[in-house]
Amino acid sequence: MEALDYHAEERRKAEFDVKEMKIVWAGSRRAYEISDRVARLVASDPVFQKENRTMLSRKELFTDTLKKVAHAWKRIIELRLSEEEGNKLMVFMDQPSFADLQWGMFIPAIKANGSEEQKAKWLPLAYKVKILGCYAQTELGHGSNVRGLETTATFDPHTDEFLLHSPTLTSSKWWPGGMGKVSTHAVVYARLITDGQDHGVHAFIVQLRSLDDLSPLPGITVGDIGMKFGSGAYNSMDNGVMRFDHVRIPRDQMLMGISQVTRDGKYMQSDVPRQLMYGPMVYVRQKIVADASTALSRAVCIATRYSAVRRQFGSQNGGPETQVIDYKTQQNRLFPLLASAYAFRFVGQWLMWLYNDVTQKLQANDFSTLPEVHACTAGLKCITTSATADGIEECRKLCGGHGYLSSSGLPELFAVYVPACTYEGDNVVLLLQVGRFLMKTVSQLGSGKKPVGTVAYMGRAEHLLQCRCEVERAEDWLKPHVLVEAFEARATRMAVSCAKNINKFPKQDDGFAELSADLTEAAVAHCQLIVVSKFIEKLQQDIPGKGVKRQLEILCNVYALSLIHKHLGDFVASGCITPEQGALANEQLRLLYSQVRPNAVALVDAFNYTDHYLGSILGRYDGNVYPKLYEAAWKDPLNETVVPDGYDEYIRPILKQHIRVARL
Amino acid sequence: MEALDYHAEERRKAEFDVKEMKIVWAGSRRAYEISDRVARLVASDPVFQKENRTMLSRKELFTDTLKKVAHAWKRIIELRLSEEEGNKLMVFMDQPSFADLQWGMFIPAIKANGSEEQKAKWLPLAYKVKILGCYAQTELGHGSNVRGLETTATFDPHTDEFLLHSPTLTSSKWWPGGMGKVSTHAVVYARLITDGQDHGVHAFIVQLRSLDDLSPLPGITVGDIGMKFGSGAYNSMDNGVMRFDHVRIPRDQMLMGISQVTRDGKYMQSDVPRQLMYGPMVYVRQKIVADASTALSRAVCIATRYSAVRRQFGSQNGGPETQVIDYKTQQNRLFPLLASAYAFRFVGQWLMWLYNDVTQKLQANDFSTLPEVHACTAGLKCITTSATADGIEECRKLCGGHGYLSSSGLPELFAVYVPACTYEGDNVVLLLQVGRFLMKTVSQLGSGKKPVGTVAYMGRAEHLLQCRCEVERAEDWLKPHVLVEAFEARATRMAVSCAKNINKFPKQDDGFAELSADLTEAAVAHCQLIVVSKFIEKLQQDIPGKGVKRQLEILCNVYALSLIHKHLGDFVASGCITPEQGALANEQLRLLYSQVRPNAVALVDAFNYTDHYLGSILGRYDGNVYPKLYEAAWKDPLNETVVPDGYDEYIRPILKQHIRVARL
Repeated sequence: MEALDYHAEERRKAEFDVKEMKIVWAGSRRAYEISDRVARLVASDPVFQKENRTMLSRKELFTDTLKKVAHAWKRIIELRLSEEEGNKLMVFMDQPSFADLQWGMFIPAIKANGSEEQKAKWLPLAYKVKILGCYAQTELGHGSNVRGLETTATFDPHTDEFLLHSPTLTSSKWWPGGMGKVSTHAVVYARLITDGQDHGVHAFIVQLRSLDDLSPLPGITVGDIGMKFGSGAYNSMDNGVMRFDHVRIPRDQMLMGISQVTRDGKYMQSDVPRQLMYGPMVYVRQKIVADASTALSRAVCIATRYSAVRRQFGSQNGGPETQVIDYKTQQNRLFPLLASAYAFRFVGQWLMWLYNDVTQKLQANDFSTLPEVHACTAGLKCITTSATADGIEECRKLCGGHGYLSSSGLPELFAVYVPACTYEGDNVVLLLQVGRFLMKTVSQLGSGKKPVGTVAYMGRAEHLLQCRCEVERAEDWLKPHVLVEAFEARATRMAVSCAKNINKFPKQDDGFAELSADLTEAAVAHCQLIVVSKFIEKLQQDIPGKGVKRQLEILCNVYALSLIHKHLGDFVASGCITPEQGALANEQLRLLYSQVRPNAVALVDAFNYTDHYLGSILGRYDGNVYPKLYEAAWKDPLNETVVPDGYDEYIRPILKQHIRVARL
Repeated sequence: MEALDYHAEERRKAEFDVKEMKIVWAGSRRAYEISDRVARLVASDPVFQKENRTMLSRKELFTDTLKKVAHAWKRIIELRLSEEEGNKLMVFMDQPSFADLQWGMFIPAIKANGSEEQKAKWLPLAYKVKILGCYAQTELGHGSNVRGLETTATFDPHTDEFLLHSPTLTSSKWWPGGMGKVSTHAVVYARLITDGQDHGVHAFIVQLRSLDDLSPLPGITVGDIGMKFGSGAYNSMDNGVMRFDHVRIPRDQMLMGISQVTRDGKYMQSDVPRQLMYGPMVYVRQKIVADASTALSRAVCIATRYSAVRRQFGSQNGGPETQVIDYKTQQNRLFPLLASAYAFRFVGQWLMWLYNDVTQKLQANDFSTLPEVHACTAGLKCITTSATADGIEECRKLCGGHGYLSSSGLPELFAVYVPACTYEGDNVVLLLQVGRFLMKTVSQLGSGKKPVGTVAYMGRAEHLLQCRCEVERAEDWLKPHVLVEAFEARATRMAVSCAKNINKFPKQDDGFAELSADLTEAAVAHCQLIVVSKFIEKLQQDIPGKGVKRQLEILCNVYALSLIHKHLGDFVASGCITPEQGALANEQLRLLYSQVRPNAVALVDAFNYTDHYLGSILGRYDGNVYPKLYEAAWKDPLNETVVPDGYDEYIRPILKQHIRVARL
């Protein structure tokens, strides 16, 4: 018996080898095989089902999460999964939980800040899950400005202990995931005070709860901060609030890898270069960029498949209506997002390379590229997360009314994704850092200090400031060097123009403050150039598989040209391209859409998502949307009874006119 | 005792009469007084409290909604509220419910489509709430394309009845609010079939449920379609699914105001002009635009107040940190939204005038302005709802991490608002209609047929196609005629350019299809011009109150100039302004932000929202944010117990290593 597949015709139309594209998407054949196997494993396990997640009350959802985590850990052991496989399993479980913090923040924080002795003591406890840890940095009053944290850790030389204390309401720890109800331990960030002197923010390991019964230890007030955006979504996480009332911890629970406090209360810095801490930061941001491509591709997969199922208008002679994916307005919104998902994927893969490169350089005490690497990773974090958050919502709108249903999966995807624009550095705050780095780069041009890495192009500023785009016909826009130069010229001109305007201010700081919005725009231009460049570089590699490279070339061009259209003001106002060239870019873009169209469904199949992971009736692999939407409706709790609760009390008296409710 | 007010200093700084601004915002002194009184009434009533709304399960939320509606109706009678006051009470109750459909759709549909006899029979039943009605148009398979609806109403001459039937799965009625669990009656849209002939979609009154016990009548399968975006939000509404299995209704329940079926099954059209149906449509869209300004202003109010409370970075010599509202990046995102809220308010007020104007013209059988009115109202619906949906989310991000908390009110505001981009005409579908209207207008230029109303400016196309913007210094951008001409030139040039490109196609329809994305952009340009023009016209009126007009002038300029910056590509590429003039617009915009800054809190106070209606701790009138956030956290159900449910089963065995969960 042949399986039902409403997309069969779409899949037949594809002009490339989908299996090979899956491997490109995954990064390697091995990565593909692991993902594929683990995703199916999770999808077939009844404990990991999540259809009813958005209908659960907060408490039910939380218990469900505890159950899933315990089951996941159990399966990882039973199946002897590798660390990579285990991580994948947690990813495909697709439910944020306290466990994310154990591996994602608690262990890395100890690795980054602990002494060798401390690592030897604490890491095994964490790895063996004899303790459950979280990362307690953010406070009610301070997020972006870490230096403004107020929690204190005061050394008491009499007892050789630190006293953790929350001196103000705003010093309450607020947001740390896992802290609200579960964590037994935390890496707590607090101001180190010895002998009345404030040494700034340092990290401490603090036990929060009893290992016997999980009750909070004396002096510690801790709880959950309450509901967050959406149903389901991040409400499975116990983001917490915590206050310390003079809580004592032994001196050796200050993480002393970088700074130390001696027995007699002397504060010392080790000779380990502080820059080493950048390594993990690059790793985290690389992960965020990779996650952006995952989240965006899920939304795009749902919207693309449903756009091929959905028909509306255009019926001729009683034939079927037009698939909405055939409308240019739909393609114009959807295909740039499809292209962005691929673009972010590849820039994420490149960031993985960058991380390894930086790690090697750091180990060789070469810190020369750090400012550039910092600016690049911070900036990529911003533009990919912002575009992904907006893109998910756009995909939801592209599904019309049904995108508003929880069963479309898109509302929850949006709600669970959007904090990425704020955590690990608020996007606007980070873009300003990128902007300042660009200003510094511009100011050093001609000084003999050559810009490196992703700003190397600025070494050609003289050319880029006066070059003219050579496009004469629409197809000229398909030349990679034309695209790159247009983006380089735009980024250079915006940065240089910003720098000039800042210099007009008597005080440079005032210039930075006044023109900060312009700075963020220059930063965006720079970061978009990076994504375009890395996509093009990817295409210079050998990519096997029939038609695979061709599809990626099309998507790369869609990505670049749609950005030119979107930011036409930047390109034209700075004279990088003429209005006519802008119009040709738009014309070429439309032609590209026609080339994407027959491959669209196959291009989202290449993400290789199971129906379980997608969690969307609209995005079902088989396209069997309407019967399943209909079926799912009846599972809503409201449909448990035919007549709704409250009828006797609130509706019947009105209809029976026992209560007069109108004046007629 | 003086009331706590962390915003006192901000309020002292205001340079205008806030009370007078409240009146301008409300539309009249009378409207202000009614709003103010009813809002306080609702805010002080314990039944209308909503703090815990996002924590309720679907069933609890639904029962809570029934209770609130019953209470609202009771209070309206007890207090002898006028219809206007009653409507306001429902607005400030701020919870979507089946009741919205009774007055918003069921009654208007009968008014618009019923014969005099039918109105006399059904309207009193509805007004007296002896029946509860909804509006059953959309189906699982058809939303935008109303002509594609599949439900049939076949006339049976033997019994003088219609048989309502759902011939396919996709013909299931899907989405109608109130239908899921409550409505006793519906206006059902179905294909009228007499004697084997399909006369297209018509409206029928169908009883769905027993008036005795609310059980569905025979042949009717009906239920709720399940959870929608967010927690709380639209989940208080029972959007429904319904199928008919040959359900019989008497012939006189076809709404026969416009078409009739006679006793012997003859189909007849009355001589009532069909155009009369446009009146209610203008009314509904005017309401949507007004609602957009309300939703956006709520979000802006929250973000503005919290931006004045929140401090981050910039502490000097141990002093307080900088209020985030003082950062240009914050102003650059927030103030254009503040300006948009006011702009949408005034264009909404103008639409109310337009509705009256159109109504008079229709009554005089003057249908000449209908195409223009249709295009204008459809287009304004699109740009205001899209900007509002995006704006609410932007306001949420402007609140940093805390905006992600349900207690900020912003997630629910977003979730409850976004369907406005889809209902009453999907925004992109509507924009295409506007685009087509513009193409028709362009094609008639020079034909002697003068464009009227909001496209009158196209009568000056010749001038607008070649005029040059006169701006030489930043302050030149403050001249109203300069702004209007720039927007007129842009809209004209985009429309004319589209028309030219479409004409290059051998078949015009292909041109429309291929260039549909360009058409929507031309439509947006036209609609933004309308908003700018109406704001400027408003300022030509007498506006009393110290400094009130001055503030509105500033906001009008912020609105217009921020659009020029955002759509710089349109303006520069079409040669309406030079890049240098674009830069001057940006410079002027920054200066305007400094003028808005001291008035920002007072400008959102002028919306006159109670803390109840705002429903946001971040947006509290008194600015007492942090203690209240802290207090609210403890009310989450997860905090009912110290140790979470599931500890014994899922956490303890791991920590006690009864289950090995790690490989070390």
